[in-house]
Amino acid sequence: MFKFTITHQDSKTNARTGLITTSHGQIHTPAFIPVATQATVKALTPAHINEIQFDAVLCNTYHLYLRPGEKIVHKFGGVAEFMGWHKSTFTDSGGFQVFSLNNGLCTVNDDCVEFKSHIDQSKHIFTPEKSIQIQRKLGADLIFAFDQCLDIKADYETTKKSLARTHAWEVRSLKEFRKLNKDKKQALYGIVQGGRFTDLREESAKFISSLPFDAIGIGSIFGDPKEESRLLVAHALKFLPVEKTKHLLGIGAVEDLFTYVELGLDTFDCVLPTRLARVGYFFVRPESGGKIENKFRQRITNLRYKEDKNPPDKYCPCYTCTNFTKAYINHLYKADELLFYTLMTYHNLSFFYRLMKEMRDAIEKNKFLTLKKKWLQ
Amino acid sequence: MFKFTITHQDSKTNARTGLITTSHGQIHTPAFIPVATQATVKALTPAHINEIQFDAVLCNTYHLYLRPGEKIVHKFGGVAEFMGWHKSTFTDSGGFQVFSLNNGLCTVNDDCVEFKSHIDQSKHIFTPEKSIQIQRKLGADLIFAFDQCLDIKADYETTKKSLARTHAWEVRSLKEFRKLNKDKKQALYGIVQGGRFTDLREESAKFISSLPFDAIGIGSIFGDPKEESRLLVAHALKFLPVEKTKHLLGIGAVEDLFTYVELGLDTFDCVLPTRLARVGYFFVRPESGGKIENKFRQRITNLRYKEDKNPPDKYCPCYTCTNFTKAYINHLYKADELLFYTLMTYHNLSFFYRLMKEMRDAIEKNKFLTLKKKWLQ
Repeated sequence: MFKFTITHQDSKTNARTGLITTSHGQIHTPAFIPVATQATVKALTPAHINEIQFDAVLCNTYHLYLRPGEKIVHKFGGVAEFMGWHKSTFTDSGGFQVFSLNNGLCTVNDDCVEFKSHIDQSKHIFTPEKSIQIQRKLGADLIFAFDQCLDIKADYETTKKSLARTHAWEVRSLKEFRKLNKDKKQALYGIVQGGRFTDLREESAKFISSLPFDAIGIGSIFGDPKEESRLLVAHALKFLPVEKTKHLLGIGAVEDLFTYVELGLDTFDCVLPTRLARVGYFFVRPESGGKIENKFRQRITNLRYKEDKNPPDKYCPCYTCTNFTKAYINHLYKADELLFYTLMTYHNLSFFYRLMKEMRDAIEKNKFLTLKKKWLQ
Repeated sequence: MFKFTITHQDSKTNARTGLITTSHGQIHTPAFIPVATQATVKALTPAHINEIQFDAVLCNTYHLYLRPGEKIVHKFGGVAEFMGWHKSTFTDSGGFQVFSLNNGLCTVNDDCVEFKSHIDQSKHIFTPEKSIQIQRKLGADLIFAFDQCLDIKADYETTKKSLARTHAWEVRSLKEFRKLNKDKKQALYGIVQGGRFTDLREESAKFISSLPFDAIGIGSIFGDPKEESRLLVAHALKFLPVEKTKHLLGIGAVEDLFTYVELGLDTFDCVLPTRLARVGYFFVRPESGGKIENKFRQRITNLRYKEDKNPPDKYCPCYTCTNFTKAYINHLYKADELLFYTLMTYHNLSFFYRLMKEMRDAIEKNKFLTLKKKWLQ
C-alpha cells in the first residue's frame, strides 16, 4: 500500500510536513533516510536505527542483486524482513552504482547497460525491466525507476540524448512495475533528470508528471555549485504536481537539506553522515559551534581531544553524547576498535534525525525560516 | 570496597554460588567475565553488555598503559568511567601480555621485566610496583598481583626458579598495594603459579594463602591436557582458603567451565567467545546440537547457511537469535559488514552469560551435576 498526505504547509515557504504510508508503517516528512547499502546501516543494529527513531532506510539494488542475490532476499519475505528491520524501506534502481562503480567502463545502449561486478568482475546486464524485477523481489515499499546517471558536467547534447534514453527507460520501468505490482504492495518513483540544463530539467519534470508514477525523485543534483543546483531544482518543481511526495537523491549536507526542504522536497538519502562517521567526522549543532564554514562538523581524531571530557556535542541527547567523551572515542579510534564506528555513526545519524525533526516541528508552527536562520546565519 | 560472600554451597560438589561486592556493584558468581582489552568489549556497546546482564568486564593493563596511558584513564575517574561502563571492572597485571606479546623477546631479571611496545617498539619496564601503580591509576575494582607467566611446558628447574621470582614479585605487589590502597577502593588478587608440577602448585598455594590477599587467582592453566590441568588445580585448591573468592585466568571452554566451577572456582575470563565470534564461530546449546565433540560451536561462514532461516541457536533468547537468521549473518560476513561482528559477539557472550546463570541456578538447587550431565554427556 502507498499513500502520501501533506499534513501542514508552511505559510511562508514551500516547505511542508507530510506522511508517507507504506505496508510497513508511516514516514514523517521531511525525512532523512539512512543508507543501508548491503541491507545494514554500517556499524549499527536495526535496534539502534529504531531507537534513533528513523522511519525508513534505503538499500542499494545493485549491491543486493550481486550479494546475496534478490532471490534469497525474496525467500525471506523481502529486504526489511531479511535484515530484521520492521519499518519501511526504499531501494534505488541500481542505476547510480552501475554507472559510478564501473567508472565509465560499463557499456550502455538504448536497450540496456552491461557492467562488471565490483566483487568478482563477472559480467551483468541491467535493463529497466530487470531493475524493476529485482526491486520487486527485494520487496522494498518504495522503489525507483531505472535511469541513466550522467556526469553533471556533461555537455548539452550528451545530456539531451541521455535524457531521452532515461525517459524511455522510465516508461519501460513503469510498464514492468504495473505488470508486477498488481497487489499494490510497492510504490514507484519516477526520476527527473536533465543535468545542469534548465530547459532539460523542465522537459523532464513535465514528462515525469505526465506519467502515473506514485511519487517523484530528482536525480543527479550534487549540491555544488549550490546556487546553480538550487535553481535547477526550483525550476523543475514548477512543473511537478504539488500533491506527490518528492525524494532528492544523494543529498545530505545540512545547508542543502534546508534549501530543498524550503523548496518542498520531502525525503533525502545520503551516505555522508555514516561514511564521514567512519573516518572520524562528527556533526555539531550551532549551539556547539557548527556552522556552514566548518560544514557543521569536527574531527574526533584531532590530538586536542585526547583528554577532552566533553561528549562530541553536549547539546545532543543521543546515546553516544550522553554516555561517552571525546577522549574515549579518540582512544577507540587510535586503538582501532570496532566500537568507534558504532558510536560515531550513532551520533551522526542522531544529529540528522533531530535536524529533520526540528524542521518538521518548525514547519508545523510556520517557523521554518526562523529555524533556517538559526542554523545558517 | 570489597566483600565476598558464599551464598550457597552445592551439596554434592565443591561448586558454590557467591556474591562479590565492589564499589561499582555486585558480581554474581560463578561468573564469566568478558574481556574488554582496550577498555571496550570488541564490537559491543556497554549498553549491550549491560543488556546481556554481565556484572563485570576485565581490561588489560598492558594495553591501557600503552594506550591511552593510565594517567588519562585516571583523569576520567578510572577505567569504568572512561569506557562508560557503570558496573565492576577487573584489570590483569600486564604480566601475561608482556611475556606473550613479546614472544620471548622481553628481558627479565629478579627486579623487573623490560619489553617493547607492540605499537611503536618503544622500550618499557614493568616492576611489580609499577604494575600496581598503573592498576591503581586505572582504578579497576579488582586487580591482580604481578607475576611471571611461564610456558606451561617449561621444565621443573625453570619453573621452580620462576615461581620463586613470582612469589617475590607478589610480595612486592602486595606491599605496594597496601601503600596505595589506604582508601580500600580496590581489592588485590594473589596468583597461584607453579606450571605443571603438583608440588610447585602446592608450594604456591600455601605461600599465597599465607599472605593477606583479598582474593586468589590461578594462572597458567591452559585447559590442555584437560585431566592434567584439572588435577593441578584440584591439588592447589586443597591448600587455598575456601572463603576467599577465586579466579581462573584465561579459561573459557564450556567443558572447562563445568570442570572448574565444580572444583569451587568463582570467576573466569577468556577472549574465546569474542575472538571466535569475529572469525565466524557461534556457540550452540545442547538442545541445538552443541556437544564436546564440536566444542559447542558451529561456523556461520558455512555455505549451507546461505539460505538458512533459523537463528544461530533457536533455543537462545538473545537479541541476535530473536531477530536474525543464519542466512542474514552469513550475508553480513560475506559482505564484510561491521554488524557481523556485533551480532556474533552479542550471541556468543549471551551464550556464556546464560550458561553461567544456569550453573548458578543449578547450584542453588543442589543440581549442578545434573546440569553438567545434560551439557557434557
